[in-house]
Amino acid sequence: MSDERPATSGPEPAYDKVHSGYRSFHHPHAFECEWGGVLPEFTLAYETWGRLNEDRSNVILLQTGLSASSHAKSHEENPHPGWWEQFIGPGLSLDTDRWFVICTNLLGGCYGSTGPSSIDPRSQAPYGPDFPILTVADMVRAQFLLLDHLGIDKLHAAVGASLGGMQSLQSAALFPERVERCLSISACAQSHPMSVAMRFVQREALRSDPAWAGGRYYGQSFPHVGLKLAREIGTITYRSGPEWEERFGRKRGSGSPHFGADFEVESYLEYQGEKFCLIYDPNSYLVISKAMDLFDLGHGQASYEKGVARVACPSLVIGVRSDLLFPCWQQREIASILEKAHLPVKYVEIDAPYGHDTFLIEVEQVGGPVKRFLED
Amino acid sequence: MSDERPATSGPEPAYDKVHSGYRSFHHPHAFECEWGGVLPEFTLAYETWGRLNEDRSNVILLQTGLSASSHAKSHEENPHPGWWEQFIGPGLSLDTDRWFVICTNLLGGCYGSTGPSSIDPRSQAPYGPDFPILTVADMVRAQFLLLDHLGIDKLHAAVGASLGGMQSLQSAALFPERVERCLSISACAQSHPMSVAMRFVQREALRSDPAWAGGRYYGQSFPHVGLKLAREIGTITYRSGPEWEERFGRKRGSGSPHFGADFEVESYLEYQGEKFCLIYDPNSYLVISKAMDLFDLGHGQASYEKGVARVACPSLVIGVRSDLLFPCWQQREIASILEKAHLPVKYVEIDAPYGHDTFLIEVEQVGGPVKRFLED
Repeated sequence: MSDERPATSGPEPAYDKVHSGYRSFHHPHAFECEWGGVLPEFTLAYETWGRLNEDRSNVILLQTGLSASSHAKSHEENPHPGWWEQFIGPGLSLDTDRWFVICTNLLGGCYGSTGPSSIDPRSQAPYGPDFPILTVADMVRAQFLLLDHLGIDKLHAAVGASLGGMQSLQSAALFPERVERCLSISACAQSHPMSVAMRFVQREALRSDPAWAGGRYYGQSFPHVGLKLAREIGTITYRSGPEWEERFGRKRGSGSPHFGADFEVESYLEYQGEKFCLIYDPNSYLVISKAMDLFDLGHGQASYEKGVARVACPSLVIGVRSDLLFPCWQQREIASILEKAHLPVKYVEIDAPYGHDTFLIEVEQVGGPVKRFLED
Repeated sequence: MSDERPATSGPEPAYDKVHSGYRSFHHPHAFECEWGGVLPEFTLAYETWGRLNEDRSNVILLQTGLSASSHAKSHEENPHPGWWEQFIGPGLSLDTDRWFVICTNLLGGCYGSTGPSSIDPRSQAPYGPDFPILTVADMVRAQFLLLDHLGIDKLHAAVGASLGGMQSLQSAALFPERVERCLSISACAQSHPMSVAMRFVQREALRSDPAWAGGRYYGQSFPHVGLKLAREIGTITYRSGPEWEERFGRKRGSGSPHFGADFEVESYLEYQGEKFCLIYDPNSYLVISKAMDLFDLGHGQASYEKGVARVACPSLVIGVRSDLLFPCWQQREIASILEKAHLPVKYVEIDAPYGHDTFLIEVEQVGGPVKRFLED
């Protein structure tokens, strides 16, 4: 198991414990990235739950958002709760009595998969800012090389939320003969300018930190201020007003109104920012965030609609009304395009106050439709 | 006329030309701020349009948002277009054939009014971070001292949008006997945690810039990177998805996907950020942004509702459906509270794609109801 955690100057208390117990798939060949760069080799960290059946027909590929690791669910080798703990297990939405669930850390990530903090075998130094531009298609192609390695030809379903939902759509579009069902939650088929803008200012915040040092901070410094700020901005886009109104209202903490956190919502943002600095590599943030901006199923296709309609398998598309980052009109649009192309699609719109992060929280409203669709 | 433009290290090409032709009201007495600080004296920059009638009963106080100056409309002494150019003039929404319109630069601002970049007469140095915490009530009380100075007892109307609308509500609540009509556009009666969060990250961006130097940058440095980033974030909250979808879509500029602006929406944000750095004082940004967070008509009142119902004069409340920063449920709430208290209120909800900035753009949809209400 490779130890590819980001080299930071700050403390990382629980990092090694939380990010362990994954398997590593090593691809020792050159991997040409869609945008032109080349990785001379790569590793993907992955974890699995449930049992692969004899004809290898019960596989669900669970695809992750920007900041998630492969650790979607606790298991013997890593008992820490995973990021979709309540959704995976016997009888749950991803029923491990029926399905063999695979989750990888993204290519470009920092939880065991090859990313900017990994050593470039050519230079024997971290890739840093020389890591190639990645696209969602690159992330998906790397995952399918893992499936090849595992002898898995077909997926019962590609499932994901946020960037994970982009990957699910991209998987079905890129490998129509290998994906039997596509589940895309709070995602889009094309990043729109508002979400590009929201991610741009996060990247700018990070790059503005002198400690980022043009991306060559490994072993030198850590752009704590920039990454913290980026995550604070990100957190605003992941959550939404209604929940915060209830949760924080206008409650104040013990801070000063002159500087720093004063209202509780400000302390909450600071906490989220600080926490993220302990576990995430800033250059991974830049690469993956940019891949989200570049995502467009219409890219290189006759039209956006034709690009989306490559998703020819039965699809479930879920949108959340309070989502600011991936507003539900985007999900409605995907469903409508697939419907007009006479493709089998089901659209579910959820009314929950948690914004984009609803998929992490609403076990019943999100998990229910997911379970039924997978078992249908 | 005082020259209180921020001391910056960067070029300020059009600053002197654009910000000229205003009058200055000097208040030579100590001004106690609501939050505890004291200004030993202050100056307010102001401009007027139209003619004060004999019984001084035709006065409209136009109150501004965070970044606006007193220059709402061009005039002989400053022919540059003002920030509400199309709304003010003979026969227009604020009909200068009928009304005498006064607009001040905010207390705390940097367009001729006393703010953090002004010289503290006690130290003979800029206030900088020692400038007191301001509230919207402080800004309004300073404006009413100007009205006293001008011999104006009553306002035909207090009119404002965004922070200006907060001031209009605050004016009516604080001086019920002096405000005959209240017009609040895209504002709120209490800042909610989502908008606090959106402003917090802007202030953090600015304070994170080492060149901010704890607020003591005058004559030393200028936190260009931080203020630019803050304004980029702010611009996202001022605009909204539908307009950008139409205007930018996924168009790309000539930038590199590796760094900086790549999509056109990113170049647009950079342009807005750069432009702001040429004309605005960072410490003013901090002080005024914080005043918006602190705004709460319920503060010190028996209840939020009772605090809002102090606005006893006829009111027009306007909300915009695409506004992310001051969502229209907040305007609906104000109208509903006033209605329940049996106070005369009219609510108008506008469907325009420009988000919070709609009040700067939609001459007909915003200006129409404003004109009718003022003349009713």
